[in-house]
Amino acid sequence: LITGGLGFLGSNLALSLCRLGAEVTVIDSFLPNHGANPFNIAEFKSEIKLIRGDIRNRSLLNKHIAANDFLFNIAAQTSHTDSIEHPLLDAQINNLGQLQILEACRHKNPDIRLIYCSTRAIYGKSDKKNIDEETIPNPLDIYSVNKLAGEYYHKIYAQVRNLNATILRVANGYGPRAQMRGPSFGILNWFIRLALDNEEIKIFGDGKQLRDYVYVDDIVQAFLAVGAQNDLKAEVLNIGSGKGLPLIKIVQEIIRISGSGKIKYVPWPENNKKIDVGDFIADIRQIRAKTNWNATTPLNQGLRDTIHFYRTNKKRYWS
Amino acid sequence: LITGGLGFLGSNLALSLCRLGAEVTVIDSFLPNHGANPFNIAEFKSEIKLIRGDIRNRSLLNKHIAANDFLFNIAAQTSHTDSIEHPLLDAQINNLGQLQILEACRHKNPDIRLIYCSTRAIYGKSDKKNIDEETIPNPLDIYSVNKLAGEYYHKIYAQVRNLNATILRVANGYGPRAQMRGPSFGILNWFIRLALDNEEIKIFGDGKQLRDYVYVDDIVQAFLAVGAQNDLKAEVLNIGSGKGLPLIKIVQEIIRISGSGKIKYVPWPENNKKIDVGDFIADIRQIRAKTNWNATTPLNQGLRDTIHFYRTNKKRYWS
Repeated sequence: LITGGLGFLGSNLALSLCRLGAEVTVIDSFLPNHGANPFNIAEFKSEIKLIRGDIRNRSLLNKHIAANDFLFNIAAQTSHTDSIEHPLLDAQINNLGQLQILEACRHKNPDIRLIYCSTRAIYGKSDKKNIDEETIPNPLDIYSVNKLAGEYYHKIYAQVRNLNATILRVANGYGPRAQMRGPSFGILNWFIRLALDNEEIKIFGDGKQLRDYVYVDDIVQAFLAVGAQNDLKAEVLNIGSGKGLPLIKIVQEIIRISGSGKIKYVPWPENNKKIDVGDFIADIRQIRAKTNWNATTPLNQGLRDTIHFYRTNKKRYWS
Repeated sequence: LITGGLGFLGSNLALSLCRLGAEVTVIDSFLPNHGANPFNIAEFKSEIKLIRGDIRNRSLLNKHIAANDFLFNIAAQTSHTDSIEHPLLDAQINNLGQLQILEACRHKNPDIRLIYCSTRAIYGKSDKKNIDEETIPNPLDIYSVNKLAGEYYHKIYAQVRNLNATILRVANGYGPRAQMRGPSFGILNWFIRLALDNEEIKIFGDGKQLRDYVYVDDIVQAFLAVGAQNDLKAEVLNIGSGKGLPLIKIVQEIIRISGSGKIKYVPWPENNKKIDVGDFIADIRQIRAKTNWNATTPLNQGLRDTIHFYRTNKKRYWS
C-alpha cells in the first residue's frame, strides 16, 4: 500500500514494486496542484489497484491497511510556500491525516511494516556542515513543522503501540514523474523544465549554496531496502547522496545536457530568504551501516535520464 | 485576552491581571474533563469578560484578538494519557486551534503581544541533568508533540509574519485553582487531594525521580514579566524553580502539612513507564538573564497555601 502513490516518489516506488512482483495498491487524493498524475503508473496500469481517496478518510484507510503487509506512507501536502499561506490545510493533511493512518494501523493491522516519508526540511538552517540524524530540528515553515510532528507520531506509535515503523528523512529528490507545473515541488526538476523550454533560470543570490540532490531511483531503492528489514523499528534515517554540490554547478550541467536555457542572477526575494535553509549535505552513514543501500546514480546520468524522460513525455507533465 | 482562562494557570493569571488593573477577557471552551471552573475567577466575576468559546472558532478569535493588546495563549488539550487515547482531538485543538489563533493575529492584530504556554514535556527523557532550552526535544506522547509543533508555529509566525510572540516552557506547576478530579492534570495537586481525603498515595517505583515543581504564582509572575517586555520575539524560555526534588520527599511534606494521607509503593504500570520522562530540572538562567523574574516561593509555603486553599474550597473542586 502506497499513500500518495500517484505522485513523484510514490509512483516511482509503485513501478519498482510491480517490477519485483509485488501486489500494489495506491491511494491518492488528487490534491489540487500536487503531483498526482495517472500517466506516472501507466506502465503497470492493469496491475496496480488505484484508489482515489484521502488519508483523512478513516474507513478507507481501515479497509486498505487491513488488507496489506507493507505501508509506504508518502501522502502529504508538500509545498513549503503553500503551508505558509494555507497552514490549516497543511495541518489537516500532515497532522490529522497521519494520525488517522496510525490509528488505522493500530486497530486494523498492528503488524504492518510502516515506512514514513519525512524530509530534510525538518533540519532547517543548521551550522553543521554534514547533517546527521542527531542534529537539532529547526523547521522554518509550517510544512516542515508538521512533517516533524508526523515523525514523532510514528516514533510514539512504535514505542507505545508497538507498530513496526521507520522514518526516512529524504534530501532534495529529482527525476522522472514529478509535478512540473511549478517551482514549489523540487527546484531541480523545475530548472529542467525551464531549460527544456529555453527559458531563463533565475538563481537567487550567487547560487553557491550547497545542496544534496538524490536521484529518485536511489530514493526508491532506499525505501525498498529499509522496508525489507525488520530491525529498524522507531529508527530515523537520512536518505541523500551524501555529497554537496553548489546549485549553480548543477544548473550549468542541466543547460549543457539540455542544450538550451540560460542563467539569470537575481537578488533573494524577501519571503524566500526567510525560509531558505542555506547549505545542506546529508550524513548518510546510518542508513549505510544499517542496510546495504547506497546512492549509486551519478548526477550526470540522473540528469540525462530525467531530461530525456521529460523531453519524451512533455505533454504529460507541462500542463 | 487569555485563552483557557478558566483553567489552572489561566485563571490565576486572570486574577493577577485584574489586581494590576488590566481589562481582562477570558475565552474558555469548557472542554470536558479539563480545568474550566467558573469559581476560579469568582473574586473578579464582574470585572472579567468571560466568553464561552473554542479556539477552533475562527470568527470568535478574530473578534477578540482584534480587541486586545496582549494574548496569553494557554488553551490546550492538556492530558498526556488522553492524547494517546484520542490523538485526533489533541491535534484538532493543539495544532489546528493554534494555527487559527496565529492566523487571527496575523490578519486582525499583527501587533498584539503574544505569549504561548508550552511545557517541559517537549524535552521528554534526556540524559542532561539540567535541561536548558538548547536540549534536543524528545516528546514521548502526542500531547507533547503537538505542544512542540505549537512552539514552532509561534516561532515561524514571529519570523515570517513578524508577530511579537514568545514561547514559555513551563515545568510541573502546582497550586490553587487546578483541576482536582483526576491525576492527569498535575500529579502534585492530585497527591494533595489524596492526602486531604486521607487516602493512599501510590508512588510508582522508588519515588526518587527528581522533578522541578513550581508554584503557580511564580509561573504567573513569569508570564507577566515576559509579557511586559518587547525584546523577546521568537524567544523560547524555560520556567521552573530551577531545583530538583525527589517526588517522595514532596509527598512526605504534603502528608506532614495535611496531617493525613499515606504512601503506598507500587511497581510502574507498563503504559505509564513508556511515557515517563525520568528526572527533570529546568535550567532557568535564560529567563533570569532576560527578565527580572525568579521563582521565589519556597516549596513549604506553596504547599501550605495550596492545601489551605483546597481544604477551604473542597466542594468547588472535588466533584
